[in-house]
Amino acid sequence: MALVNEHFLKLRGNYLFSDIAKKVNTFRITHPRQPLIRLGIGDVTRPLPPACIEAMHKAVDEMADAATFHGYGPEQGYDFLIEAILKNDYAPRGIHLSPAEIFVSDGAKSDTGNIGELLRWDNSMAITDPVYPVYVDSNIMCGRSGVLEENGQWSNVTYLPCTAENDFVPALPDHRVDLIYLCYPNNPTGTTLTREQLKRWVDYALENDTLLVFDAAYEAFIHEDDVPHSIYEIRGAKRVAIEIRSYSKTAGFTGLRCGYTVVPKELTAATLEGQRIALNPLWNRRQCTKFNGTSYVTQRAAEATYTPDGKEQVKANIEYYMANASVMRRELTAAGLRVYGGVNSPYLWVGTPEGTGSWKFFEQMLYNTGVVSTPGVGFGPSGEGYVRLTAFGTHEDCQEAMERLRRWLK
Amino acid sequence: MALVNEHFLKLRGNYLFSDIAKKVNTFRITHPRQPLIRLGIGDVTRPLPPACIEAMHKAVDEMADAATFHGYGPEQGYDFLIEAILKNDYAPRGIHLSPAEIFVSDGAKSDTGNIGELLRWDNSMAITDPVYPVYVDSNIMCGRSGVLEENGQWSNVTYLPCTAENDFVPALPDHRVDLIYLCYPNNPTGTTLTREQLKRWVDYALENDTLLVFDAAYEAFIHEDDVPHSIYEIRGAKRVAIEIRSYSKTAGFTGLRCGYTVVPKELTAATLEGQRIALNPLWNRRQCTKFNGTSYVTQRAAEATYTPDGKEQVKANIEYYMANASVMRRELTAAGLRVYGGVNSPYLWVGTPEGTGSWKFFEQMLYNTGVVSTPGVGFGPSGEGYVRLTAFGTHEDCQEAMERLRRWLK
Repeated sequence: MALVNEHFLKLRGNYLFSDIAKKVNTFRITHPRQPLIRLGIGDVTRPLPPACIEAMHKAVDEMADAATFHGYGPEQGYDFLIEAILKNDYAPRGIHLSPAEIFVSDGAKSDTGNIGELLRWDNSMAITDPVYPVYVDSNIMCGRSGVLEENGQWSNVTYLPCTAENDFVPALPDHRVDLIYLCYPNNPTGTTLTREQLKRWVDYALENDTLLVFDAAYEAFIHEDDVPHSIYEIRGAKRVAIEIRSYSKTAGFTGLRCGYTVVPKELTAATLEGQRIALNPLWNRRQCTKFNGTSYVTQRAAEATYTPDGKEQVKANIEYYMANASVMRRELTAAGLRVYGGVNSPYLWVGTPEGTGSWKFFEQMLYNTGVVSTPGVGFGPSGEGYVRLTAFGTHEDCQEAMERLRRWLK
Repeated sequence: MALVNEHFLKLRGNYLFSDIAKKVNTFRITHPRQPLIRLGIGDVTRPLPPACIEAMHKAVDEMADAATFHGYGPEQGYDFLIEAILKNDYAPRGIHLSPAEIFVSDGAKSDTGNIGELLRWDNSMAITDPVYPVYVDSNIMCGRSGVLEENGQWSNVTYLPCTAENDFVPALPDHRVDLIYLCYPNNPTGTTLTREQLKRWVDYALENDTLLVFDAAYEAFIHEDDVPHSIYEIRGAKRVAIEIRSYSKTAGFTGLRCGYTVVPKELTAATLEGQRIALNPLWNRRQCTKFNGTSYVTQRAAEATYTPDGKEQVKANIEYYMANASVMRRELTAAGLRVYGGVNSPYLWVGTPEGTGSWKFFEQMLYNTGVVSTPGVGFGPSGEGYVRLTAFGTHEDCQEAMERLRRWLK
């Protein structure tokens, strides 16, 4: 008989955001008159930059004419986009990558979920805690995370707590691990690492022969000087790190689907016998076999984010959200809450009042104000005692939510 | 140290179509004046149907306005598209599926490559031979195919030869296997199974507790009455089969990326202890964790293929290609070649002249006529002695290619 991959059965039945959606629906049914303000899920609300809209209309028209029609594109992405990436995202920071090191995809979530295929199923791994659920869930699915222990942690996963106590700067693992996921600016805490702090991770990886998966999906929100935009700003990182980028939050592509992954040619992993194997051709083979490229129309939209107009428009959208973040930081702090993030990130990580659990505070906030947050513990054990709020709403909703919270908490 | 997934190292370095591209490039450099006609790779050349173009422009405009902007969509696809699929692709054939059984994706290649994640790595498998390389390669990557033996076959794969000798109707395996990939209308041979023939496979699967992955990417090309469009036309198939569909060849979406996969609720696989596990929620969990939905703009284009205008336009494109197929069948037969397929399929499977190998005939054709084919042996051992030609070119190219072949072969 066909045997099921039993690792899947270890997964919790629901994805965090489905649990939240259910609770919100219950609230809506019981409180039909209370208007909801959703600051929970990290989805954008601003429309696409006009430069992207224009590029897409043009690309759609090309698809209407046999002479300019585009069929299968390169699995790795079109040269026009890869060149724009190299020229705009890397060269200005002194990072020199070749086109063959960039893999355009249908989004960071796909790449984050699939990248583990390149590694043996039994590599040990570490994550910062709290963390984006995909890093853990995708490893549960292939057995890499081990078994769920009584303390709610997975046996083959090292958890690196990030809390107010360590200023959200995780300590290096006290033993060696094979694979570490890092996300900076961080989802969910909204905090960052300085160049010096990130260097410690690269040095650890170089010393311990560890592979870093660096998720830089929120790079565009960095405003402070000492925060690296790419892990490749750190010397030696090309030998140990894969970097994942996204247009979702940068330019509002959550509904269009486009991101990219950098797999440097110097990056290797080992066979059991110790032979070094370059990961770049392996990821290329993976993508050529199980993926067929990103929509031509979408890639033209991504390219347009790098035009002078596109850059201005992207910047304006980011500033719009960061203005929200600024208001939220001020108001939540004034309301007596402990607030982190929101400076180089669209996420605010908010400590719950003393002794109140994440889910409890989530429900209190929902029922008292109609504002939807995300319970921090949903991102991992160290998220207990926090909720995440996002700055992706409209100015009006954001203002209104802050007023409701202030009235409630005073 | 991070250990590599050594199964990847068993893969041949190159994907078939990269090998071909290299040989074609060599020819172009040495024969710069000979104009090429590409009938090798299965990419479409007709522009998108006007109904799709119109739907995409409209969807792009929606993305330009905050009031109609679409961010994250459902990982499973939008209801508007799923309802159109149920209403048009299934209900008219008496097949009743629920919306939760349809998973819209960025294309059949992704789903075909990823579906194996739901199963234990050591399930035994069978493929028809010749076959679409993704079925085998994606299983090599996770170790399921076993090791490559001296005869060029994988140890855990049962090969079911399809040749002129058995009229391209594969025999059922003479032992039980856990997983079988079937593709009808077939890529590469262009042949089909009748309802009665497909029923034998469903019955085998029901008797042997075998999972069938049924790739129906070329369904739109079916013209004969007795050829099933969906495996679910066969009684009992929902208990044993996953069906994969694509808009790529149907409506020219190779550059847009959209397809869908049906995972019926009745479909189960077993744990080692014999417990039955429904695969539908597992695939849902996989898609929610490692995929973030298909572009809203693309899904609106897919929806438009089901409008009255869209249906007419899709039909016209299919007829365009099938007119090519008809000319090719006639001319190649007149030139003394043995020709299969091309009736319910855009592919023609052409026997090489007695004693000439696939690669040899591919090169002879290329150097004598400038026509690019695909060597049949690239699709598996039983493809030796054949080449594949596609009907996806323009009428003009197709006519010209046939004239060149006739002159060369006379």
